[in-house]
Amino acid sequence: MKKGEKYGKIKDMNDIEKIINKIEKFRKERDWKQFHKPKDLAISLSLEASEVLEHFQWKSNDEINEYIKTHKDHIGEELADVFYWVLIMSNDLDIDIIKAFNKKMKKNAEKYPISKAKGKHTKYNEL
Amino acid sequence: MKKGEKYGKIKDMNDIEKIINKIEKFRKERDWKQFHKPKDLAISLSLEASEVLEHFQWKSNDEINEYIKTHKDHIGEELADVFYWVLIMSNDLDIDIIKAFNKKMKKNAEKYPISKAKGKHTKYNEL
Amino acid sequence: MKKGEKYGKIKDMNDIEKIINKIEKFRKERDWKQFHKPKDLAISLSLEASEVLEHFQWKSNDEINEYIKTHKDHIGEELADVFYWVLIMSNDLDIDIIKAFNKKMKKNAEKYPISKAKGKHTKYNEL
Amino acid sequence: MKKGEKYGKIKDMNDIEKIINKIEKFRKERDWKQFHKPKDLAISLSLEASEVLEHFQWKSNDEINEYIKTHKDHIGEELADVFYWVLIMSNDLDIDIIKAFNKKMKKNAEKYPISKAKGKHTKYNEL
Repeated sequence: MKKGEKYGKIKDMNDIEKIINKIEKFRKERDWKQFHKPKDLAISLSLEASEVLEHFQWKSNDEINEYIKTHKDHIGEELADVFYWVLIMSNDLDIDIIKAFNKKMKKNAEKYPISKAKGKHTKYNEL
Repeated sequence: MKKGEKYGKIKDMNDIEKIINKIEKFRKERDWKQFHKPKDLAISLSLEASEVLEHFQWKSNDEINEYIKTHKDHIGEELADVFYWVLIMSNDLDIDIIKAFNKKMKKNAEKYPISKAKGKHTKYNEL
Repeated sequence: MKKGEKYGKIKDMNDIEKIINKIEKFRKERDWKQFHKPKDLAISLSLEASEVLEHFQWKSNDEINEYIKTHKDHIGEELADVFYWVLIMSNDLDIDIIKAFNKKMKKNAEKYPISKAKGKHTKYNEL
Repeated sequence: MKKGEKYGKIKDMNDIEKIINKIEKFRKERDWKQFHKPKDLAISLSLEASEVLEHFQWKSNDEINEYIKTHKDHIGEELADVFYWVLIMSNDLDIDIIKAFNKKMKKNAEKYPISKAKGKHTKYNEL
């Protein structure tokens, strides 16, 4: 896949609001909102993140690079699940995820100024 | 906030590709790609999901509802972190997260047909 | 089961060292130590803790109480897995888990003095 | 520390029942049992396992080996927390953790027969 093509064909779905609407429709049809207490949404988020992580357990970096080539669909499914819970949770808590993201990026830029953080994986409070 | 307004003002940032570009620029400036092995990206995803979860620990549903009102910014920051790692990980593994999401939604619809799943929180393999 | 009987019949296995020896024997027979890098041990610990958590997802407190009655063996298996990874990880990192536990209990007692912490689920830094 | 000495001096604390009694006393003094719903215990277990994992994030194997040497106390504290939640959760759910552990070890031995599993990190369902 050419880099330029990525996300290209799906432009009309690239709008976060449309994605959230899709999720909400799916949920409404199943009458699942009653179960979606914030604590349980957060548990789901955590469990799905674990399922992403499970793909990489025990493998060396080389093994992982090989594994990814043949398991993009599987890993993609788990990432999609995390994506799903982030969006539905933001929606239910009335958090604008894009605004929150932009705000956090700004904060990260302050916590990790280029001059100090470049080339280091040190946590901000130890920089 | 009126529903219609949500995400409205930030339309130009609503494109996943632009968000990913923003993350990649941030990372490049700090020369952090060298640390972003898939296993560590997955660990980050999991740790940030835990930080979301921590907000809801020990609290009853009523306490959570009160808590959310006054902690939207904090929870939003943690959700933004998860969002960040989902996108950067998808990008690095060359997974189109929107395509993966649409595919998974289709699969979920098959695993949880409305007729069987409506009003139940049962896992698909026990429906 | 009478309270007094609990752990009673298995006294000879109640020694942490014996349990660790059992785990090490199991591992040696399978030549698995080569895979047990600390990062992967920690991932295992986290994934198994998620499997415990999964049992309680979506359920109300009442549903959970019913669920526990009929799923003690399943939950016990997941808890045993976490127990296993705590012990093997402590062993490999040359951490005496009992000493570490006693030390932490002492620290917790200082972080959460009875007079301040009684009847509250507040985190120590907000007490 | 000589291997033989490990756990040696703390023999009287090596009994799981005594450790659980210690935890229960600590909890009772603080009147915390009211908060210890199984779902929240499982969340705690998961969050503490994440804190163990956080120590190893971003680091290479060599960096981790160096890190461990100087951070045994910190890592030990987090492992102690996981240990704490495993034991209190087992206790509250009336699960005998030693029995559960022995049962699981037997099951693992069947899932991973030496002849098939030796020297491989493959999951049992793919062996």
